[in-house]
Amino acid sequence: MNVLITGFDPFGGESINPAYEAVKRLPDHIQTANIIKLEIPTVFEECTKLLDEAIQKNHPDLVICVGQAGGRVNITPEFVGINYMDARIPDNKGNQPLQSKIKEDGPDAYFTKLPVKAICEELKSSGIPAVISYSAGTYVCNYVMYSLLYMIDRKYPHIRGGFIHVPYDTSQAAKLSSSTASMPIDMISLGLEKTIKACIEHSEDILIPGGTTH
Amino acid sequence: MNVLITGFDPFGGESINPAYEAVKRLPDHIQTANIIKLEIPTVFEECTKLLDEAIQKNHPDLVICVGQAGGRVNITPEFVGINYMDARIPDNKGNQPLQSKIKEDGPDAYFTKLPVKAICEELKSSGIPAVISYSAGTYVCNYVMYSLLYMIDRKYPHIRGGFIHVPYDTSQAAKLSSSTASMPIDMISLGLEKTIKACIEHSEDILIPGGTTH
Amino acid sequence: MNVLITGFDPFGGESINPAYEAVKRLPDHIQTANIIKLEIPTVFEECTKLLDEAIQKNHPDLVICVGQAGGRVNITPEFVGINYMDARIPDNKGNQPLQSKIKEDGPDAYFTKLPVKAICEELKSSGIPAVISYSAGTYVCNYVMYSLLYMIDRKYPHIRGGFIHVPYDTSQAAKLSSSTASMPIDMISLGLEKTIKACIEHSEDILIPGGTTH
Amino acid sequence: MNVLITGFDPFGGESINPAYEAVKRLPDHIQTANIIKLEIPTVFEECTKLLDEAIQKNHPDLVICVGQAGGRVNITPEFVGINYMDARIPDNKGNQPLQSKIKEDGPDAYFTKLPVKAICEELKSSGIPAVISYSAGTYVCNYVMYSLLYMIDRKYPHIRGGFIHVPYDTSQAAKLSSSTASMPIDMISLGLEKTIKACIEHSEDILIPGGTTH
Repeated sequence: MNVLITGFDPFGGESINPAYEAVKRLPDHIQTANIIKLEIPTVFEECTKLLDEAIQKNHPDLVICVGQAGGRVNITPEFVGINYMDARIPDNKGNQPLQSKIKEDGPDAYFTKLPVKAICEELKSSGIPAVISYSAGTYVCNYVMYSLLYMIDRKYPHIRGGFIHVPYDTSQAAKLSSSTASMPIDMISLGLEKTIKACIEHSEDILIPGGTTH
Repeated sequence: MNVLITGFDPFGGESINPAYEAVKRLPDHIQTANIIKLEIPTVFEECTKLLDEAIQKNHPDLVICVGQAGGRVNITPEFVGINYMDARIPDNKGNQPLQSKIKEDGPDAYFTKLPVKAICEELKSSGIPAVISYSAGTYVCNYVMYSLLYMIDRKYPHIRGGFIHVPYDTSQAAKLSSSTASMPIDMISLGLEKTIKACIEHSEDILIPGGTTH
Repeated sequence: MNVLITGFDPFGGESINPAYEAVKRLPDHIQTANIIKLEIPTVFEECTKLLDEAIQKNHPDLVICVGQAGGRVNITPEFVGINYMDARIPDNKGNQPLQSKIKEDGPDAYFTKLPVKAICEELKSSGIPAVISYSAGTYVCNYVMYSLLYMIDRKYPHIRGGFIHVPYDTSQAAKLSSSTASMPIDMISLGLEKTIKACIEHSEDILIPGGTTH
Repeated sequence: MNVLITGFDPFGGESINPAYEAVKRLPDHIQTANIIKLEIPTVFEECTKLLDEAIQKNHPDLVICVGQAGGRVNITPEFVGINYMDARIPDNKGNQPLQSKIKEDGPDAYFTKLPVKAICEELKSSGIPAVISYSAGTYVCNYVMYSLLYMIDRKYPHIRGGFIHVPYDTSQAAKLSSSTASMPIDMISLGLEKTIKACIEHSEDILIPGGTTH
């Protein structure tokens, strides 16, 4: 089993991006799975182009994209990606799409097929705060998530995919002038390892019981 | 022009629900519109049954449902309703749907057609804090929103509809043991009046520029 | 009975300061008391010089200073003023005292003699969120509070005095880019009126039962 | 040099108290200092009786008490202890002092002599979020802090002492139903080690420049 996991490159003047730093520290194997790690740029379009190339090259069964949601206290698996971009600030190449759709022919939103509840249970039983999030925002993070789910819907129906938001790293937060929540990178990385473990062990659809997604 | 606006009945042991209290205080006419006010129960299914009956009876052009999101500091027009229920606590009749779809044959989500950005601008220029929300939760509020947008999609394509979350009323917050944000009911009610005004004046689709929703 | 109540002038580029705006709207008489309103500058030393002059001129029985604590959700009567200045930003005349005492010969702190618990009860029973605060910070607000209590201790033992922090005004908060708690100026002003009422009706010492402060 | 450092016992139904867990993990020697660790009960009076006995037995040069402030995101050295108790809930033996002084003959407050600014700089340069706090509350934590500073003032003038509040442990936070900030115990413990290091290296008075405290 192949797992492709991505993290964004540094952004907004930072020298590191904790999302990819945490990805980098993952082991190369988790249970029976090979872990393929990929840094993607915080740039609309480019990030998903690279993601698609990596999917074609590595044939993953599971794709997890990781980004930072500064200020959150928990690791938050995202439940839904929406077909919408509204960038508060420009991306790393100066793009700033406003109030526009990601895919003209796509539905308003896709639910992830990752077992978000099982992921949160796994993390919490390991002492790592976690909660499901129902909004990935309207910036590059949601863009990657929606685009991944669109690709899965159109081209890669056998892949399960989703997005995980992680808090500020503590060393970032320690430098900020105002108080904000954070988590050490080692704990974030352990949280991602537990996330992958939960995905491997819970391959059923997330909407059980109570209905199936298709 | 007819505007149907709903608020929930008291919930969780409270004697009033600020959402409907604010609705009740609205004038009967705003600009050229007749305002029809409806209290709906905080009960899955029943609330949308009553909503549908009121739509059939009153032939509204605009339907706005209002609920409370205790703890928020702003009036928050909701952008998206999702096809999902996961109730943390039972509703007023003891129903507690968990991890299930609202409509088996519905898409994962619908975007509102209300001009959420124009609503926020109108409110803020009136001195009322407002911001777009991208998650209405997974309880009765999101249930009503998704169900309304589903009904519009299937039966009432000429209606525009959406959902507005409002903060705690200050007199509720004053009774709570922990500090929490709030807003006086009169200001909430003024915010809803400005919301209707913005909807009347901005009939264009929300995804302009950058694409249209259909 | 004479009540002197002060509010700061506009600060940090703002055109109004809600603290004094709320003071200005107070009636000239509350119960049996004459209300004397004074705007003081957001400047170390100058503010207390003006305050002392106004005390000498008006012979108040009660002195209440009001300032803004942006971000708080409640009206917060301050319990204690500390003999310490550490200004994060310069005041309106460019002074920025760092890590220094206010009065070389003063004690580390003074408790207010205002009935802070009764004030909060009065406000909450009027539907206005309120809670006692145990820190007025280390800027001009705490400076005025400590200096007032020092003057009372040394020169005006018959006067009761204290400090009230109030939230952002809603129209200020509506202009900020990030979400923050606020309260309409009219409600802040009503809260100050109720504060004065509680002070008039509760003239006993605040540390009853359990001990007296001197 | 001897350093006495205390942490509270488990409280409010918890099986562990992260404050003492973090203390327990400290090394026995930090630079030239011997570290003496003491668990004290979350009980008014008893905690300071045990503290006084440990001071008499161990002749420390430095005394640091540690407690938990659930919800804070930073490690927070406390600047001031106040002569006041107002317990929201009973302590571990059912005592609940309300609105009363700790010491009838004590001043309203004492500033710590710990180098709180240097402590925060040391922690932040180690990647651990830290900020000075100006209120230790009105419960057992403030009680211990004020009592310690009172003992130092009256009986042990050669000792420097103070109080450090620490966040929830992440494994505690992971079990709570609502999202709250936290920090892993290992990082809290490292923060306490850095706190002791900063106290050893910065023996000057905290109010330099700008005045001395006595």
